[in-house]
Amino acid sequence: MVSVSQADNIVLANTKDFGVETLSFEDCLGRVLAEDLIADRDLPPYNRVAMDGIAIVFDAFQNGIMRFKIAGTQAAGDKPIEITDNEQCVEIMTGAALPDSLDTIIRYEDVKMEDGFATILIKDIRKGQNIHCKGIDKKQGEIVVRSGAYITPAVINMAASVGKTSLAVKKNPKVVIITTGDEVIAVDKTPSPYEVRQSNNYAAKAVLQQYSVAAELLHIVDDAEKVKQQLANCLSQYDAIILSGGISMGKFDYVPQALQVLQVEQLFYKVQQRPGKPFWFGKHGNGTVVFAFPGNPVSTFMCLHRYFIPWLKSCWGLEIPKAYAILNSEVTFAPPLQYFMQVKLRMNKQAQLVATPTEGHGSGDFANLLESNAFMELPAELNNFKQGEIYPIWTFSPVI
Amino acid sequence: MVSVSQADNIVLANTKDFGVETLSFEDCLGRVLAEDLIADRDLPPYNRVAMDGIAIVFDAFQNGIMRFKIAGTQAAGDKPIEITDNEQCVEIMTGAALPDSLDTIIRYEDVKMEDGFATILIKDIRKGQNIHCKGIDKKQGEIVVRSGAYITPAVINMAASVGKTSLAVKKNPKVVIITTGDEVIAVDKTPSPYEVRQSNNYAAKAVLQQYSVAAELLHIVDDAEKVKQQLANCLSQYDAIILSGGISMGKFDYVPQALQVLQVEQLFYKVQQRPGKPFWFGKHGNGTVVFAFPGNPVSTFMCLHRYFIPWLKSCWGLEIPKAYAILNSEVTFAPPLQYFMQVKLRMNKQAQLVATPTEGHGSGDFANLLESNAFMELPAELNNFKQGEIYPIWTFSPVI
Repeated sequence: MVSVSQADNIVLANTKDFGVETLSFEDCLGRVLAEDLIADRDLPPYNRVAMDGIAIVFDAFQNGIMRFKIAGTQAAGDKPIEITDNEQCVEIMTGAALPDSLDTIIRYEDVKMEDGFATILIKDIRKGQNIHCKGIDKKQGEIVVRSGAYITPAVINMAASVGKTSLAVKKNPKVVIITTGDEVIAVDKTPSPYEVRQSNNYAAKAVLQQYSVAAELLHIVDDAEKVKQQLANCLSQYDAIILSGGISMGKFDYVPQALQVLQVEQLFYKVQQRPGKPFWFGKHGNGTVVFAFPGNPVSTFMCLHRYFIPWLKSCWGLEIPKAYAILNSEVTFAPPLQYFMQVKLRMNKQAQLVATPTEGHGSGDFANLLESNAFMELPAELNNFKQGEIYPIWTFSPVI
Repeated sequence: MVSVSQADNIVLANTKDFGVETLSFEDCLGRVLAEDLIADRDLPPYNRVAMDGIAIVFDAFQNGIMRFKIAGTQAAGDKPIEITDNEQCVEIMTGAALPDSLDTIIRYEDVKMEDGFATILIKDIRKGQNIHCKGIDKKQGEIVVRSGAYITPAVINMAASVGKTSLAVKKNPKVVIITTGDEVIAVDKTPSPYEVRQSNNYAAKAVLQQYSVAAELLHIVDDAEKVKQQLANCLSQYDAIILSGGISMGKFDYVPQALQVLQVEQLFYKVQQRPGKPFWFGKHGNGTVVFAFPGNPVSTFMCLHRYFIPWLKSCWGLEIPKAYAILNSEVTFAPPLQYFMQVKLRMNKQAQLVATPTEGHGSGDFANLLESNAFMELPAELNNFKQGEIYPIWTFSPVI
């Protein structure tokens, strides 16, 4: 048996870079950038007018000129209209390129427009106001987004801005989620009194979908030969195998034996935690990792968020953010195990996350997860946890 | 001009239920459930064995029997094996249905198995231990997930468990994101010195994608007739129109005029905020709402998160979660406007969100959004904001 922190270290020591693929930039949300995005020109590309109004020469205003002849009207996208003397102005729109002969924008609200002239109604004008200067955000050739960035809508926007219609992104691992056990039947079947429908695999697939990973599903029946054969196939086809169930000490759990025969090296078996104690982790010589989670739904769900997702993020080179919450009631947990307690998080007006334990009936009680949005990780060394104490959390549903 | 809170109220007073559609449960992640999910049988459906080991009659153990004859071995999914006298036990696997004639599970680790007999090695046994009792999570006929729930992986799991292969979910609004302006060109084109590529629309589409809404994109050139014609089409085809740009006071902004001709009622124009002051919101008689956001990238992005997403959640009947952060430095903002300041949030070890302002160059500076993950909403009534003060936040990139 290993501690949670040992298990964590071993899992994170077995990550891998799965290479790079190129996708249309519109399909890259939630992926990880594998190239630097470079400004193909200054950002903004010109002195960009930031208000609708008139463009003037500030010195003229400072020399007492308040009334300017309108030399023309320039929309965004138009070629700049240059003035020929300082008593002229240009009526100009937001987004337009400031003409070189002008340097200051007065917004419409502060101007009276009449008979081809614009009269400034205010006195407090700053030279260069209402202009978003060329290159102030980024210079041409500068990196605007670094390789390794998680692709958010803001990154998509920047890719569009610099004309990158396709992006190099990190490849996702090929993942298969395997359920085992003859008591587990298809969702559209009516179970006999001793059967249950497949569900862990769908939950796991949905979790991975949230991370833009399209996992495949496979169910293997309790038959030693079939287990071996299908696991062998999976080892050759996938980068990561998630097993839900089939790894405990039960006589009909053919998985551990098959993994041994197939030369998947056990890196640990059993973690000092509840739920999810009989978690088995191993690696094949070809690099495929095997996360064999206990089959009960809460164990699979917890292990997925606590071990698999950090592994995935680490493969992508992303940081694994640390989050904490304040325990909202007294909790006693006697076993010398790290306790991943289901909690409901909410944010209080002090900008703190507060965790209320959500009562459940153990690791088989999936219904209870619906009332929860995180696991709170209570250390194995302690048995009594007091209201107001702060512990790490692993969220699995939206909090803020 | 309206205040942010007035704008908010008006937007949220113009939501709509877009009806119900039925999808395969595997396609429902991130949608909103439009029916109650009912337990089709007790959960668990039987007294579910929670550990691999042996099943015994507790009374026999209490009467001093430590050595039990193994009557058979029962895997998960097997029909229960009943014993004929109390000195027998059944070797039994996790997930199996507890036979009626037995009531307590001793795990393998606490038993010695030899010659067809199991000898219990421990003394501390509790009647009914290691059994997840029939119906303890949910009773048959009970609602397991209520209509209106946001569909998380845990809901998908529950749908699978109760055999719901298709789910009634709330329909999404049909949304089109329109860019306007002749200075805005396609992403794959090389801009002249006075042009920029489309990008706001892609960012907005990606934001909506995060909420499982597939928006369409449309670009309209600066031509009064075309603007009118295409807006008329959109009003008849979509539930919500998001306009980025084309709504300010500029001479070539044909949108306000077209909206008037097309009888879209203006519900407000201009909000006491920065960025995004010239935000226009209106509604057509057929129910289509028009969010006309100012065209600069940060304004569109902010307004989308501050107004459109809450509108969307409200249409779905979801709560709009309130979140706060602690300001990490002194900020002065003179204009009498609600200031949506770009910040980088991180969580400290006191389980608090801390917001560090991310320096930028105004509402045109999209590059800066890449360094930020939220807007902090600083009230218009104040001008000086001190370190340690707490204000609402609107996140747009992952925080925890």
